[in-house]
Amino acid sequence: MIVEQQDNIPQQSALFTDLYQLRMMQSYYAEEMNAIAVFELFFRTLPSNRNFVMAAGLDNILSYLEQLHVTDGERDWLKEAGGFSPRFCQQLGDFHFTGDVFAVPEGTVVFENEPVVQVIAPLPEAQLVETYLLNQIHLQSVLATKAARVVSAARGHKVVDFGSRRAHGTDAALKIARTSYLAGVNATSNVFAGRAYGIPVVGTMAHSFIQAHPSEYAALRAFIQEFPDTTLLVDTYDTLAGVRKVIALAEALGQDFKVKAIRLDSGDLGKLAKESRRLLDEGGLSQVRIVASSGLDEYKIQALLAEQTPIDGFGVGTQLAVSGDAPEIDFSYKLVEYAGKPRMKLSSSKELLPGRKQVFRFFEADRMKRDVIARFEENLAGKPLLEQVMSQGKRLGRGRTSLADAREHARQQMAALPLELHALQRVKFGYPVTVSDSLRQANEQLQRELAVELDPHFGAS
Amino acid sequence: MIVEQQDNIPQQSALFTDLYQLRMMQSYYAEEMNAIAVFELFFRTLPSNRNFVMAAGLDNILSYLEQLHVTDGERDWLKEAGGFSPRFCQQLGDFHFTGDVFAVPEGTVVFENEPVVQVIAPLPEAQLVETYLLNQIHLQSVLATKAARVVSAARGHKVVDFGSRRAHGTDAALKIARTSYLAGVNATSNVFAGRAYGIPVVGTMAHSFIQAHPSEYAALRAFIQEFPDTTLLVDTYDTLAGVRKVIALAEALGQDFKVKAIRLDSGDLGKLAKESRRLLDEGGLSQVRIVASSGLDEYKIQALLAEQTPIDGFGVGTQLAVSGDAPEIDFSYKLVEYAGKPRMKLSSSKELLPGRKQVFRFFEADRMKRDVIARFEENLAGKPLLEQVMSQGKRLGRGRTSLADAREHARQQMAALPLELHALQRVKFGYPVTVSDSLRQANEQLQRELAVELDPHFGAS
Repeated sequence: MIVEQQDNIPQQSALFTDLYQLRMMQSYYAEEMNAIAVFELFFRTLPSNRNFVMAAGLDNILSYLEQLHVTDGERDWLKEAGGFSPRFCQQLGDFHFTGDVFAVPEGTVVFENEPVVQVIAPLPEAQLVETYLLNQIHLQSVLATKAARVVSAARGHKVVDFGSRRAHGTDAALKIARTSYLAGVNATSNVFAGRAYGIPVVGTMAHSFIQAHPSEYAALRAFIQEFPDTTLLVDTYDTLAGVRKVIALAEALGQDFKVKAIRLDSGDLGKLAKESRRLLDEGGLSQVRIVASSGLDEYKIQALLAEQTPIDGFGVGTQLAVSGDAPEIDFSYKLVEYAGKPRMKLSSSKELLPGRKQVFRFFEADRMKRDVIARFEENLAGKPLLEQVMSQGKRLGRGRTSLADAREHARQQMAALPLELHALQRVKFGYPVTVSDSLRQANEQLQRELAVELDPHFGAS
Repeated sequence: MIVEQQDNIPQQSALFTDLYQLRMMQSYYAEEMNAIAVFELFFRTLPSNRNFVMAAGLDNILSYLEQLHVTDGERDWLKEAGGFSPRFCQQLGDFHFTGDVFAVPEGTVVFENEPVVQVIAPLPEAQLVETYLLNQIHLQSVLATKAARVVSAARGHKVVDFGSRRAHGTDAALKIARTSYLAGVNATSNVFAGRAYGIPVVGTMAHSFIQAHPSEYAALRAFIQEFPDTTLLVDTYDTLAGVRKVIALAEALGQDFKVKAIRLDSGDLGKLAKESRRLLDEGGLSQVRIVASSGLDEYKIQALLAEQTPIDGFGVGTQLAVSGDAPEIDFSYKLVEYAGKPRMKLSSSKELLPGRKQVFRFFEADRMKRDVIARFEENLAGKPLLEQVMSQGKRLGRGRTSLADAREHARQQMAALPLELHALQRVKFGYPVTVSDSLRQANEQLQRELAVELDPHFGAS
């Protein structure tokens, strides 16, 4: 429980938000604009090289919404340093989130313009939470998507998260461990994350361990004294010479030799893996596996496996951590309804489908076939993706999915994904997502109503 | 103080590390390998489109080193779930960091192979801290470098950090606010960061505020009721119609009209800024400034200013937050000396200059001219970059630089940077960094010594 609390700070601070959210809140309070708003969180365009996005981060945002409040110290600061009115700062003392949340389950595969999270709450509450909700859904979906691609490229070989050191901060490091496990990665190197989320933790040795000892052989021998069934790093000085030392160790130790694997971390991994495999097999060590790391990503893993490289597992660090080929997705959190009326905006290339929505997914022989974005009230034949996870500020059962269950859901999603969308490059014809007739009509009607507003002289009197 | 603590969790947990660090520690303890090690943190290659890196993150890692310890709960977990020996877990009860740290001041411009942080400590201590040190120096240097480029491209125009929502997690969001301020950005939108670091916080209104009101005019009017000297967002429906409403508001309010600026957030910013400026000037509102946001980065800002676009300030979000054109730098943390002897590794394309080092910087007429990487003991004529910031686990005065002082240091660094290195694209001939003769000789000598180790039959008996 202590771990859980640590992980949630400063997430639970109401001040982890953009200043404009609080300014709008003060104005809403002053105007008594407290009616129910519907905000939807979605992205407009798939990043390059992405044929799908795997949604993640829901568990975190529900924790945040349940705990959200403003402390006395924070209210004092807002009044004294933040330029907010005393009345507003007093009102914030009672603040907590009382709304409903609908969302797609973590691990669900989603596409352009499909709501991933839907917040239905009094306008000021729904507004304040925008920054944190975007921050977490964005990060975790970027990472889960990258990890799903790496897992797909690894075709059943084990993948381990080595990303902590190059992740963008501590929160990202923990979330990489969590979301990559969600997306099918087998373990993490981060001990804190392993403990916090109950994920298998793995790790072997660094080059410094070899360097600090009088010889490579002495280092390897000392390490298996403590950890007999470990993985040994062999490339500190010369990879194949390192492999020969492992074979010599096996000969010296006989029955006591329990080493599980060697790790290659530099050079031409394909060539070195083949030669290492041959040396190990010739040395009677066919049970010793080969794991590889060093600048790996889904593209390199795919290329290595395409050449039948005898690598049994992959440690993926930097690229899993930063998703270098697509570090951002254009997630937005937009008002679509207020006080029962659909809302839209028309900003150039940032238009918005108005009103509360649902996504219906159609299948054919267990494969996803197409999605339809519809008005929330519609009842189409497909499977609705958004389900209620919070009611009046409290989580419902559907909002309490365990990480293990979410991982199984993600596995099923990837199994149902059309085969061509597993491609690492963008396919020409992506997954079909259409808008229902009823939603299209509602959109056109609101555009006509807004035509009045578009008159430049409107409202100036 | 409470804020400061929140920001440091879970950073201060000794379990925020890779499992292999703890495994190596157990082996070091068992072997009584407790002599002094020197580790250096540096990068090998400049990322594409980067002519320099601005070092940042030192303040955080010193806080971490001062507070580092293992809790009883963590030790229990390591014993029961982590597979560590009872003896080691007991030894961890006394663990804290007792070493010295040398570093370049935050905001210093650095280049390939130059040590940014140097840790001199008993081997197990220096090893454990690798993951957190890399995580923070990497993140904050990636962000400070990006921000320095954005500030340079903005040529004195104000720049504001809008990155929180697309930052990779909460820690990254706070660190963007901090490091971009360090690098010359003027303010942040993140309230928590503003309070925690004492950075100016700014913010106006979102499209949802306009959408929620019966008309754009009503929304603008309501907002300035609460915040008279605000910035008004004008592009929700039609940008120039929005500007005309601001002018109408000014006419209606007369002396009470105190609006400072309008914000453009979509469309052709160059064209819209020019037309908006003309409308405002014609409407007698030449004092109202124009700020722009929407997918900005240093390249777009440079292009807008090259066309004399009348934009007074820039809100930069996603690209400041994720540094999309260079989201990672290949920072490593490597053992260079143990028990008084220099150490190296020879892994293909990951070679290492052995021994503890210093960087000497040479100037000509206040401009940086060249750097020399030398053995630590050498006394070259240039200015040494690494200075002691921690002694025996306690911060020294040089390790307590305020954010304001670090910001001034960063400003001076950018002023001393050779003009051509301000280019946003990679220049053909980068900044000259050479290795001293003495260091080169030490390197060659160690290579000869390691030749013995490279004999594949060495040590196998």
